[in-house]
Amino acid sequence: MKVLKIVKIGGSIIDDEVALDAFLIEFSKLASPKVLVHGGGKTATRLARKLGIPIKMIDGRRITDAETLDVILMTYAGKLNKTIVAKLQAQNCNAIGFSGADGNTIISEKRKIDLIDYGFVGDVLAVNIETLKLLLNNGITPILCAITHDGKGQLLNTNADTIASEIAIRFAKCLETELYYCFEKNGVLKDVNDETSVIEEINTISYKTLISEGIVSEGMLPKLNNCFHAINQKVKKVYIGKPAMLFNSKSKFTTIQE
Amino acid sequence: MKVLKIVKIGGSIIDDEVALDAFLIEFSKLASPKVLVHGGGKTATRLARKLGIPIKMIDGRRITDAETLDVILMTYAGKLNKTIVAKLQAQNCNAIGFSGADGNTIISEKRKIDLIDYGFVGDVLAVNIETLKLLLNNGITPILCAITHDGKGQLLNTNADTIASEIAIRFAKCLETELYYCFEKNGVLKDVNDETSVIEEINTISYKTLISEGIVSEGMLPKLNNCFHAINQKVKKVYIGKPAMLFNSKSKFTTIQE
Repeated sequence: MKVLKIVKIGGSIIDDEVALDAFLIEFSKLASPKVLVHGGGKTATRLARKLGIPIKMIDGRRITDAETLDVILMTYAGKLNKTIVAKLQAQNCNAIGFSGADGNTIISEKRKIDLIDYGFVGDVLAVNIETLKLLLNNGITPILCAITHDGKGQLLNTNADTIASEIAIRFAKCLETELYYCFEKNGVLKDVNDETSVIEEINTISYKTLISEGIVSEGMLPKLNNCFHAINQKVKKVYIGKPAMLFNSKSKFTTIQE
Repeated sequence: MKVLKIVKIGGSIIDDEVALDAFLIEFSKLASPKVLVHGGGKTATRLARKLGIPIKMIDGRRITDAETLDVILMTYAGKLNKTIVAKLQAQNCNAIGFSGADGNTIISEKRKIDLIDYGFVGDVLAVNIETLKLLLNNGITPILCAITHDGKGQLLNTNADTIASEIAIRFAKCLETELYYCFEKNGVLKDVNDETSVIEEINTISYKTLISEGIVSEGMLPKLNNCFHAINQKVKKVYIGKPAMLFNSKSKFTTIQE
């Protein structure tokens, strides 16, 4: 198998039909085997509002009670995942939608209650790539939404960035794997208001400096931690930037180095 | 491959958590390769009510405008499909959720507007079983919800009974296939108020008599038409009854003959 690309797309793409269509047309043309990972937080928030379900966030993390879990299941695995799959089929890219329960792909455990009860949120325990590999070997592209299960029948809401890195780490054990975090900016920026201030390379040492100098903002910390976790676990390359980085070598983006 | 069982479950099972759990425990134990087909109309209706989306039915068929299609996607492919998959994984039955878009499995066309505009409702044009076969050959059980796609990016609401018969017909071309319609009654009843009045066998000739005598009610007609369509297209056996017919040879049910 050629180099495998694990691509995570964020809300700025999923939530904008024009951007999503444009992305999927290019994504479908990628010659490499590929896995797409998506969440859908903004769509979930809109549905929760319509249903009168209060939205509870602590430090940017969603408190997932039973009603909110249903909203997550309905938007991520229902509306968004199937829309992406149907749009890819229209581009002759044979895709299959996945949650972590499908094929027993991602087993997680409900986050333990410490100071905060996050509810039905899952921390990844194990990743089984057998079914994903079976599909990839048959030319089928898995589309994974940010839902996992505990193996005892409970579905759990799990961070999409984490799912992307865990999947990439597991694949990296058996083949060359690259991880792409696509979001609304050109990469990690020195100045968050200047799209041209992309930091083109970050390694473990410069990362510490960026944190100590306060250049890496709080919002970027969990994403970068996922990147370094992946790089340290044999994922060949990790990139952060706009989706253009996947399709156009001229675009600027951030490369994470060991 | 042993005899393949295509099993369709109706609202009386999906909508009752205790009944669904009991069914899935038994279903997971079936030694044969199997495909489960489900809808979820009642759950969809409840969500539509909560969202203030008017429910429009004509002759028992749902008029599916864009908002209603979203409700169908969210409940069938999101909440219900993933719940079933997670519950089966808990029983060590490795399952994968499917819509007709996944693996390009069921291509349909939007129903033409004649007297009634049914909206985003799809009539089946073609069934591709390659991906389902790949999974079955690897010991994985596909769980198919009642959604199809037109191959041009549009998802469509499609009758679950029809999906079950079309999938069974397609599989019957290459292997011995049985089709089971599980619902809330013991089978086709002579007297709709008497559960013991099961008609144990119906063939093409007796079916005509049952219709002319008014014994087959209007609600049963589309289901029985799907049964006879399947039997006439080489599906080996077709059964209608409670789920017990799958697990317990002593239970009564209706067998459809050519």
